[in-house]
Amino acid sequence: MPQQSFQDYYPHVFAHCYGCGRLNEHGHQIKSYWDGEESVCHFLPEPYHIAIPGYVYGGLLASLIDCHGTGTAAAAAYRAAKEQDSNAEPNTRFLTASLHVDYLKPTPLGVELEIRGKVKELKGRKVVIEEWILANGVITVRGEVVAVQVPEQMVEELLKAK
Amino acid sequence: MPQQSFQDYYPHVFAHCYGCGRLNEHGHQIKSYWDGEESVCHFLPEPYHIAIPGYVYGGLLASLIDCHGTGTAAAAAYRAAKEQDSNAEPNTRFLTASLHVDYLKPTPLGVELEIRGKVKELKGRKVVIEEWILANGVITVRGEVVAVQVPEQMVEELLKAK
Repeated sequence: MPQQSFQDYYPHVFAHCYGCGRLNEHGHQIKSYWDGEESVCHFLPEPYHIAIPGYVYGGLLASLIDCHGTGTAAAAAYRAAKEQDSNAEPNTRFLTASLHVDYLKPTPLGVELEIRGKVKELKGRKVVIEEWILANGVITVRGEVVAVQVPEQMVEELLKAK
Repeated sequence: MPQQSFQDYYPHVFAHCYGCGRLNEHGHQIKSYWDGEESVCHFLPEPYHIAIPGYVYGGLLASLIDCHGTGTAAAAAYRAAKEQDSNAEPNTRFLTASLHVDYLKPTPLGVELEIRGKVKELKGRKVVIEEWILANGVITVRGEVVAVQVPEQMVEELLKAK
C-alpha cells in the first residue's frame, strides 16, 4: 500500500485548499511526506507557471513553501501528540501566520521541483518550519513558515456551516 | 482613454508572468496603478482560490503581494528615471529577491480585494515596497517585497532566445 501523505489526513472540511487540498480539483494538490527528520514534496510546475521565459513563477514557489510548511507543521504536531498518547488523532490543521521567501536564483521551468522542510520550533499551537526548494539538485529558494493550529472555535463553526 | 496599468508597459518578453503578465491567458493578469503616493490593484479571487471554507488561499495573497510589489517597483524606477531624463523609457522589469507576508486575519472569499503599496526604499537597482491587502475596508494582510531590476545580460539573453 502506498504511504499516505500529510494532506491525506486532513479532515474533509480542511481538504479544499487551493495549494494542498485533495478535494480542490482546480488546485495544486501537493503531497508531503517524512523523509527522516525532513519532510519532502515533489511538484512539477505547469508550462504556464512562468515568471519570465524559462523560469518558474515566484508566487507558485511561495505557495509551495506555504502549503508544504503547514502540512509539515500538522505532521510534526501529530508526531509530538503521539509521543504523549499513542491514540492521538491526526485531525489537526495549521494556518500560516507568516511566510518568508528568499529567491536565491531563478528556478528553471520544466523540471520536477523538490520542496524540503525541517521543524525549527514546535511550541504549543505554533510551529516554525524552515524550507528550501531544489531544481536539478540546486537550492534556488529558501523559506520559512510560521504556522498556527486552527482554533477549536473556528473548527466548530466550519463543521456547523458544512 | 483609460489609464494604462504598470503591467501594460512591460516589454513583450516580460509580459508572460502567471501573476501579472497581460499575455498569460492562464494567469491572474493583475493591473496596478498609482493613487497619489500609493499604488493600488483590485482583484476578485475565484471561488476555488480557497484556503479553508469562506477564506482566501494564502498562496494567492502572497502572489498578489509579489506581483503588485514588482509592478510598483518598476513604476517607481520609471518615475525616478523620468525626473532625471524626461525621455526615459518605461522598459524596466523587476524580479523578487525576497517576499514577506504576515497574515493578520483570515481574508474573506467572495469580495474584491484591494492591494496597496508604498515605496519604502529606492536605491540603484533595488526597490523595497511595503504593501497591505484590504477586504471590505479591513486590512487582513501585510507584506514586503524586495525587488531587483532584471540584469541587462538576462534581458539580452531573453531577447535573443525569443
